[in-house]
Amino acid sequence: MGIDPGAANLGFGVVRIEGNHMVALDGGVIETSPDQPMERRLERIHRALAELIEWHEPKAVALEDLYFGKNVRSAMSVGQAVGVTMLAAAQKGIRCYAYTPQAIKMSVCGSGSAGKKQVQRMVGTLLQLPEPPSPDHAADALAVAICHGGAAGTRQALEALEQKGPTAPLREQLAG
Amino acid sequence: MGIDPGAANLGFGVVRIEGNHMVALDGGVIETSPDQPMERRLERIHRALAELIEWHEPKAVALEDLYFGKNVRSAMSVGQAVGVTMLAAAQKGIRCYAYTPQAIKMSVCGSGSAGKKQVQRMVGTLLQLPEPPSPDHAADALAVAICHGGAAGTRQALEALEQKGPTAPLREQLAG
Repeated sequence: MGIDPGAANLGFGVVRIEGNHMVALDGGVIETSPDQPMERRLERIHRALAELIEWHEPKAVALEDLYFGKNVRSAMSVGQAVGVTMLAAAQKGIRCYAYTPQAIKMSVCGSGSAGKKQVQRMVGTLLQLPEPPSPDHAADALAVAICHGGAAGTRQALEALEQKGPTAPLREQLAG
Repeated sequence: MGIDPGAANLGFGVVRIEGNHMVALDGGVIETSPDQPMERRLERIHRALAELIEWHEPKAVALEDLYFGKNVRSAMSVGQAVGVTMLAAAQKGIRCYAYTPQAIKMSVCGSGSAGKKQVQRMVGTLLQLPEPPSPDHAADALAVAICHGGAAGTRQALEALEQKGPTAPLREQLAG
């Protein structure tokens, strides 16, 4: 299970490794209202994640490490969402892992400087979805899950794609 | 209940307003080991706080707002501890409040620039403790609780102290 953490919009995505590729099992966004007190919003996030974890029984919870490019105030807010996310995992005995945006882009696109749209397209391709996943936070969460799924799995998927003969735009993406 | 949030050492303090002064009911520090994964540490903090909240049934949970003077990395870590603290409160239907260090010092000492030792001494005085409370994180948490207890309560306590005739060093502190 991958998580794109945030207090207002927390993206989640669940993938399963099947042989030499990954499939998407679930993905979406937990939204909370800025009109609610923060403790209520955190409770909503925690309860929703606890239900998702109970349902999917993920092997691990992988979070995007949003340390980079944040100011202190927003880091504090994201940290609160990360805190209740990690708690929901720990309460089910599940380990948490953090990946930097660069590591995620590298894992998904083969380039640490890939653009947001490029990541979304590659997530759709790797998970064999009919189109790039949306909304953005769900796509980002699936990217984190793919990243945790491992460079090995991604490499295998890329090789499988190349055997199928990707179209020109896809090749450009892969060259990223 | 006042909280001095942190992932390694989370201070808590519980005070009750009795007439024109406050009394300390509880205070201490929840420590977690850096050797443990962060999600385990957060689970420990959450469980300990849930028990304390269950026991004391506080009217409110007041947190020191450590936004100031932190870097992004430590803000993220403190934010995680704040997140599970606020969750523990919300799960019992208790509202959370945040106070800046300046507001807390102003409330406890009458000066937003009071030193750490000065705050500790005043916390001990206001709560009529035989000596300044320790460790530091517990004293800070009691200060947050006093701050939330309100400027009104503090003012009444100060007036009561003045009627008793404080010693010279105390007067100096009050002038602080």
